[in-house]
Amino acid sequence: MCFAVFVNGRFCKDAKLANADDFYASGFNVSGMPTPTNLGFSVNALNVNRMPGLNTLGISMARADLEPFGLISPHIHPRATELILVLEGTIYVGFVVPDTRNPFKSRLFDKILHPGDAFVIPQSMVHIQYNMGTTNATHLSSFNSQNPGVHMIPYQLFGSNPPILDDVLVKGFQLDKKVIEHLRAQFS
Amino acid sequence: MCFAVFVNGRFCKDAKLANADDFYASGFNVSGMPTPTNLGFSVNALNVNRMPGLNTLGISMARADLEPFGLISPHIHPRATELILVLEGTIYVGFVVPDTRNPFKSRLFDKILHPGDAFVIPQSMVHIQYNMGTTNATHLSSFNSQNPGVHMIPYQLFGSNPPILDDVLVKGFQLDKKVIEHLRAQFS
Amino acid sequence: MCFAVFVNGRFCKDAKLANADDFYASGFNVSGMPTPTNLGFSVNALNVNRMPGLNTLGISMARADLEPFGLISPHIHPRATELILVLEGTIYVGFVVPDTRNPFKSRLFDKILHPGDAFVIPQSMVHIQYNMGTTNATHLSSFNSQNPGVHMIPYQLFGSNPPILDDVLVKGFQLDKKVIEHLRAQFS
Amino acid sequence: MCFAVFVNGRFCKDAKLANADDFYASGFNVSGMPTPTNLGFSVNALNVNRMPGLNTLGISMARADLEPFGLISPHIHPRATELILVLEGTIYVGFVVPDTRNPFKSRLFDKILHPGDAFVIPQSMVHIQYNMGTTNATHLSSFNSQNPGVHMIPYQLFGSNPPILDDVLVKGFQLDKKVIEHLRAQFS
Amino acid sequence: MCFAVFVNGRFCKDAKLANADDFYASGFNVSGMPTPTNLGFSVNALNVNRMPGLNTLGISMARADLEPFGLISPHIHPRATELILVLEGTIYVGFVVPDTRNPFKSRLFDKILHPGDAFVIPQSMVHIQYNMGTTNATHLSSFNSQNPGVHMIPYQLFGSNPPILDDVLVKGFQLDKKVIEHLRAQFS
Amino acid sequence: MCFAVFVNGRFCKDAKLANADDFYASGFNVSGMPTPTNLGFSVNALNVNRMPGLNTLGISMARADLEPFGLISPHIHPRATELILVLEGTIYVGFVVPDTRNPFKSRLFDKILHPGDAFVIPQSMVHIQYNMGTTNATHLSSFNSQNPGVHMIPYQLFGSNPPILDDVLVKGFQLDKKVIEHLRAQFS
Repeated sequence: MCFAVFVNGRFCKDAKLANADDFYASGFNVSGMPTPTNLGFSVNALNVNRMPGLNTLGISMARADLEPFGLISPHIHPRATELILVLEGTIYVGFVVPDTRNPFKSRLFDKILHPGDAFVIPQSMVHIQYNMGTTNATHLSSFNSQNPGVHMIPYQLFGSNPPILDDVLVKGFQLDKKVIEHLRAQFS
Repeated sequence: MCFAVFVNGRFCKDAKLANADDFYASGFNVSGMPTPTNLGFSVNALNVNRMPGLNTLGISMARADLEPFGLISPHIHPRATELILVLEGTIYVGFVVPDTRNPFKSRLFDKILHPGDAFVIPQSMVHIQYNMGTTNATHLSSFNSQNPGVHMIPYQLFGSNPPILDDVLVKGFQLDKKVIEHLRAQFS
Repeated sequence: MCFAVFVNGRFCKDAKLANADDFYASGFNVSGMPTPTNLGFSVNALNVNRMPGLNTLGISMARADLEPFGLISPHIHPRATELILVLEGTIYVGFVVPDTRNPFKSRLFDKILHPGDAFVIPQSMVHIQYNMGTTNATHLSSFNSQNPGVHMIPYQLFGSNPPILDDVLVKGFQLDKKVIEHLRAQFS
Repeated sequence: MCFAVFVNGRFCKDAKLANADDFYASGFNVSGMPTPTNLGFSVNALNVNRMPGLNTLGISMARADLEPFGLISPHIHPRATELILVLEGTIYVGFVVPDTRNPFKSRLFDKILHPGDAFVIPQSMVHIQYNMGTTNATHLSSFNSQNPGVHMIPYQLFGSNPPILDDVLVKGFQLDKKVIEHLRAQFS
Repeated sequence: MCFAVFVNGRFCKDAKLANADDFYASGFNVSGMPTPTNLGFSVNALNVNRMPGLNTLGISMARADLEPFGLISPHIHPRATELILVLEGTIYVGFVVPDTRNPFKSRLFDKILHPGDAFVIPQSMVHIQYNMGTTNATHLSSFNSQNPGVHMIPYQLFGSNPPILDDVLVKGFQLDKKVIEHLRAQFS
Repeated sequence: MCFAVFVNGRFCKDAKLANADDFYASGFNVSGMPTPTNLGFSVNALNVNRMPGLNTLGISMARADLEPFGLISPHIHPRATELILVLEGTIYVGFVVPDTRNPFKSRLFDKILHPGDAFVIPQSMVHIQYNMGTTNATHLSSFNSQNPGVHMIPYQLFGSNPPILDDVLVKGFQLDKKVIEHLRAQFS
């Protein structure tokens, strides 16, 4: 539903046809489906597919559950800042800040978070979340976009279809072609 | 801290001087200070005062705790959409949707929320949160502004300094001047 | 008509099919239809229904006429700042400014306006216009949105369909249920 | 005054120090100072210099008075759409619409306006207002910018300091250098 | 293709159906078609018609080739800033800057550019490019809009259909009607 | 220089003090300084440091020169779309497009570019440029931000200060700690 200007693509209900259910979603007290990886995390995403009324509102949310040593591998959200709040467990978070005058240098801003701690990841910054503890950990993430997007860096670099050229990856990462093949096997 | 263009007013640290603490805040596993009212709620707000790095990032958060029958009275957020997630208890939420062709008519979109339920309040809509249950209730709210603002309607109408003219309130609410005086006594 | 990117929902004419009539509207030298209330005002709105070319242009206008003691009751425009210019009569205007550090406190910025006086109401602020004089009064209002919206507070609080819960209104306004019933009778 | 983020450059009062006078201006029931030209019009502009509270609000206004055969010569507003309302007299308005596929072709959208008529000029379109009648004419203009800007085309082309190269003007307008000199004498 | 919200009007491919060709265009190593004028320039424009993937991305480009003494006559781009880079030849560029306090006065910012020189024209400023040399000249222009638009001032003023009123042009430019007729003959 | 609202941080000259030099820069007909790496490319960036007038204008540019087999390793621009135009040589370009429904899958959109070919990289997409040929290659890049930013992925992942935790990199890339050490040695 859009109160201002109607927008197409995603359906944009006439306000007269909308009702409270369009602004409601449930099921965020439990974890989402495990991801099809061995990384040990799952995401339960609250987006426009679950709550149609979010369309055009510029906000969304997700719940992430991490097993002990579970990792959300290095990734970026190209269209949103992420505000993290830890509900349970111990989560290590960090994002990489480029040196504005030398793109080959950067700093890591990282922190160990406990329940009730919050951390913010500015839009498009490379970041990770990692469960350092021996018990499950859960955090909520708010995004200031209805569609933040997610670019999982290792999967994008080594698992794309078609693959990035061998020469590019060998030179870009200064790794043997054999290691590149190993990486491709992991992430395709 | 601002990655793009530096902005004044709120301090805007040079990226070189910022560190991880600027992006961190804690203490959201407990309720905030009770409000100086008899409404039975408290708010623990995560904003730029608690987390300097939020400056210019366009996002913030709050935790609200409601005692049994606690009420966040009718209010609006003039600069943000609010996405609510219930952590504990039973919370009745609702917002008022104007009829776009007749401003004297409107619909209420309301819902009773349980833990794990979410509800979204579009920017500037009049809304309320009410603990219908006999136990404490807690929800998180995300906002897509670093400074959503809050206009508590009864306090704004009947408690402003100086007060809104008697004649305006008497006519506007079709109430005796005596009732207006009673309202002013409550909300000033 | 849209010069930049075509936008759907509201029709968006191809520039080739548009003509001068799309950018023209008339009839703002007289008052609009009286509102179906006893408040004593009428609005003559210049919006995209009257002038199709306004679509996507981010501006609109209205002429308001107030009988003696006519009142535009407390309301907000959720999507626009309003710039008022008095053409005739004496109009009392005011808007409520929240204390940014204490949402239970607020100030009223008010003024008595005569012909040629202007006043601005920032977006989403609760405000009123009131004809203090014994003759008709007229003002123009400009808005920086093609669809500013209007939330008439008393009608939204006490006249929505379905109604806001009794308990919420009784507690929120500290009024007897009988007074709430009276208010509902006035504004439904 | 800025309710959201403080912005510098133009002063941006802390909300605590602002008062109703910051949102008020007067004197728009009379014409402004005549312009230092023989074009026969004057402008009374309501901008941030007259009303400090406009700062950051994205709106402004002007009253224009045209003598009989007074002309606001071809101009553009680079940062705002203009919504015109005629208060008195007969005003011819028009703007030029480029053919999106051939920049050497364009259409004129024009109209003769009477009191109560409105016309909208999309941002940055070349336009003129002309008093076709034998009596004074007045219109109000609303702008969706606090600083719409105005580029008077003849004065910019033929009166800039330093002047645009002779060859450029001779070739650009296919006029004798003598005519260019005449134009410069008029508009410098 | 649109990664964020789908937008209609221009087609907006589902990301699943897009491919590399949508983001590719060729042929900018040669000049575009000569314009149907005697001004001596041609434009080779890289826009959404040549590269469908540009849709919603807010950027475009053009290559301009100027014969000796070729002139891009005074014009504005209503929706983009233009960043010019000279590849070959000697190009005189200039834009007109209004005096913010007196719209009848303005300054010209101009420069003679050689290969490797860059110049920026802020959005909606009247500007010209002129080949001062005796050899061909070429520049690239980047725009921060997918659809910058172009208003060729002489063609808009003297070649519109229908024409701007005689009286308006005579008075606006302080020229004899005969000269206006001459101008119309050149630019229609 | 800022025509609209003055903005601080970067200096924002009063228009009265600006002159043509603020909008001019030179030296883009030659390559920039080689980067302090063995990647074989250099960048000559046209930004606000070289052209002060770019401030607030939302546009910038860069010239990139690649030696044979030179590579701009995987990187993103967090604040701008990049429009590439090849001036000389043969350049392989590609960006990775996430599957919007499965973040562990992605497609590569790639292309071999020759002089006169253009390619666009949407904001924040991981991409590479690679000189496939045996001669030098040069491309221009336009950005729709005055400060696009650049995140060199390998340098951010393996060269940050302090480093990202061993466990995170080992698990995130499924590589031996020894290989991680090798990577760190390359990119720190």
